[in-house]
Amino acid sequence: MADNIAAYVENLAQAAKAASRPLGFASDEQRVAAVRGMATALRRNADAIIAANALDMDAARAAGTSEGLLDRLLLTPERIEGMARGLESLAILPDPVGRVLEERTIDCGLNLQKVSVPLGLVAMVYEARPNVTSDAAGICIRTGNACILRGGSIAQNSCVAIAHVLADAVQDAGLPRDAVSIIETTDRAATDVLMGLRGTVDVLIPRGGAGLIRHCVENAYVPVIETGTGNCHIYVHESADFDKARAIVMNSKTQRVGVCNACESLLVDERIADAFLPQMLVELDAAGVLVHGDERTRDLADIMDFVDATEEDWGREYLALEISVKVVADEDEAIAHIGRYGTGHSEAIVAEDEQACERFLREVDASAVYANASTRFTDGGEFGLGAEIGISTQKLHARGPFAAEALTTYKYVVRGEGQVRP
Amino acid sequence: MADNIAAYVENLAQAAKAASRPLGFASDEQRVAAVRGMATALRRNADAIIAANALDMDAARAAGTSEGLLDRLLLTPERIEGMARGLESLAILPDPVGRVLEERTIDCGLNLQKVSVPLGLVAMVYEARPNVTSDAAGICIRTGNACILRGGSIAQNSCVAIAHVLADAVQDAGLPRDAVSIIETTDRAATDVLMGLRGTVDVLIPRGGAGLIRHCVENAYVPVIETGTGNCHIYVHESADFDKARAIVMNSKTQRVGVCNACESLLVDERIADAFLPQMLVELDAAGVLVHGDERTRDLADIMDFVDATEEDWGREYLALEISVKVVADEDEAIAHIGRYGTGHSEAIVAEDEQACERFLREVDASAVYANASTRFTDGGEFGLGAEIGISTQKLHARGPFAAEALTTYKYVVRGEGQVRP
Repeated sequence: MADNIAAYVENLAQAAKAASRPLGFASDEQRVAAVRGMATALRRNADAIIAANALDMDAARAAGTSEGLLDRLLLTPERIEGMARGLESLAILPDPVGRVLEERTIDCGLNLQKVSVPLGLVAMVYEARPNVTSDAAGICIRTGNACILRGGSIAQNSCVAIAHVLADAVQDAGLPRDAVSIIETTDRAATDVLMGLRGTVDVLIPRGGAGLIRHCVENAYVPVIETGTGNCHIYVHESADFDKARAIVMNSKTQRVGVCNACESLLVDERIADAFLPQMLVELDAAGVLVHGDERTRDLADIMDFVDATEEDWGREYLALEISVKVVADEDEAIAHIGRYGTGHSEAIVAEDEQACERFLREVDASAVYANASTRFTDGGEFGLGAEIGISTQKLHARGPFAAEALTTYKYVVRGEGQVRP
Repeated sequence: MADNIAAYVENLAQAAKAASRPLGFASDEQRVAAVRGMATALRRNADAIIAANALDMDAARAAGTSEGLLDRLLLTPERIEGMARGLESLAILPDPVGRVLEERTIDCGLNLQKVSVPLGLVAMVYEARPNVTSDAAGICIRTGNACILRGGSIAQNSCVAIAHVLADAVQDAGLPRDAVSIIETTDRAATDVLMGLRGTVDVLIPRGGAGLIRHCVENAYVPVIETGTGNCHIYVHESADFDKARAIVMNSKTQRVGVCNACESLLVDERIADAFLPQMLVELDAAGVLVHGDERTRDLADIMDFVDATEEDWGREYLALEISVKVVADEDEAIAHIGRYGTGHSEAIVAEDEQACERFLREVDASAVYANASTRFTDGGEFGLGAEIGISTQKLHARGPFAAEALTTYKYVVRGEGQVRP
């Protein structure tokens, strides 16, 4: 059985890789027509997709799946319309492929161009959200890449139905159908096979929880773009404007809790702790946020639901209405604490002292560093990058919110007249 | 013992990582002064370095090491002067750190800058060339990165002596000494420990033969920039100018044989095989190049040293005076053959037909694609990139010849006045 799965995934990936070649030099017009056709096909086949989704929903309900997860799994006509619009928004992106990034004539008269080209075959591994199927396939086709998709088993019927509709539309647009491929077994071994296909899969992008991402990073032989884990801090400096600080903490913590750019930890300068923290803690408490605080914070907490922070709390990404709070001596301690426990996602200082802000922005090593703003702005849309694929917490290739451009590489194109190297 | 080595390498790497932080925001002037000081220190300590090298040379001779390897290992006053000059040439590079790559003000009035920053801690694993120690340390210090070095055991005394001289010079320049760290055990387990240090080592760059590179790629948990394997093809199209074709083949094959951008395989269009190949083969033979040819080539080969090509030959990187030769039906077969056996390094077409050239340049997937020029031009210096670190055969982050810029990443720096996300 394991052998069968290995052969199945390898064949599927090789067919997708073969499809990536003609797709890679398809014209901008062809790729735009394909994503438009994909949108139309989704609308036309909405009923069939919703019927497939109903199978997943029934099975998930029978298995006692939580309401939150059921909501993520659910497809409605409105959500399918949203997916179609997402595809159409890709059509108006400027073509990320074929851009001449640099050009020069080198000494011996050779013309040298550095030109953006698609990566080739992109593998996306994700969880319960069926819409990722169309987001991922759309961005890949738009950027001239083939994709091989692997959705969560809970969403299998939905993801396969969507992928088939999209693959048909790609074929109708005159591009290879295998450019949108999906693994049609829920056997987990398939993911591990996929992650091992060096030379076939050009990049693997996991989209989902910390467990999925860690599994991919630790087990993949193919290059991975690591996304998403955010233990984001807000450091309130002694020079902070308290009103701004409270607004930023409340927004970063509570505006949306299950997201990687939400604040998970609050650091407060010792010299203002007495003045700042009591009301801050009351506001957090009133919003239903459970505070895990250090000793000093406990002394200042006139709230019901306080718990003592453990060493483990400093490293936790709660993704819930919980926050860790620590009083620090100064900027040195704040920056060192973030260096130790941060995940390199988004880190903010609130300070009126410009020198303190600039030092923090310079010295903190993260994909996005903020002075006097909410960490919730770390987002491809907010940053004006267009359709976001994810938020990278690695340093190579793509860092922070990344979009279509991250699905390209480049090659050097050299035109000569017989030159040889002396 | 294994535990001791793990602890030793981990401590060394953590100290180097700690050193990377202050180095990462050292000024351009400080980093320039440091590489200049490193050059001066090499010159001043040339005798001690040559004495350490003599120990390596004696041991290598006693072990019956080949002349070629002994030559790579040998340090002379001239070679040390060359290393010093290499360091000085880094001083005049424009600062790759702190460049504002993009800047915009986003809707809510936030100022957003995308700024280049060092990667952090760079691990370099290399083989018998002691000069890589100073090349690697220099490029890292210039780019604000700390480095942890691991030279070949045959060159251990030389590499350690050089690294200590350089680390002292870094310290004398007011930067942390641990920014140039070297593993001082020849136990191979140390390399494997180094490759596992996720979160400490930001990138691993192996420099050496295919075996070393494969070992790193397959065993590393840290991000790797894969370098160097080149099974480069020259495809002689039916429209080729034969004189240009022969000159390009001879240059690509014989100008320097042990390098990754040398030609290893020649593909010739069937329609011109009779007219082109016989003289080409005589020229190759006369230059001492052993031809591994297919059946059709054998029929046209009026030379002594012909051997029949096996399937394995099409994938071989000879790095020697050997070449595989195949007659192909047309461009389709040539492009497909390169897609199957190429390593994505450098690929060339020789053709007067512009359409054939443009098709080849577009459809062949490699870091550098050439029309009518030698593959030997794939080189950071030739491409005008400055001090080359290596030639990447991967697609993520850096592709083809890469230099200082590849040792940087970026971060988004966001300055606000209390903005929160609506």
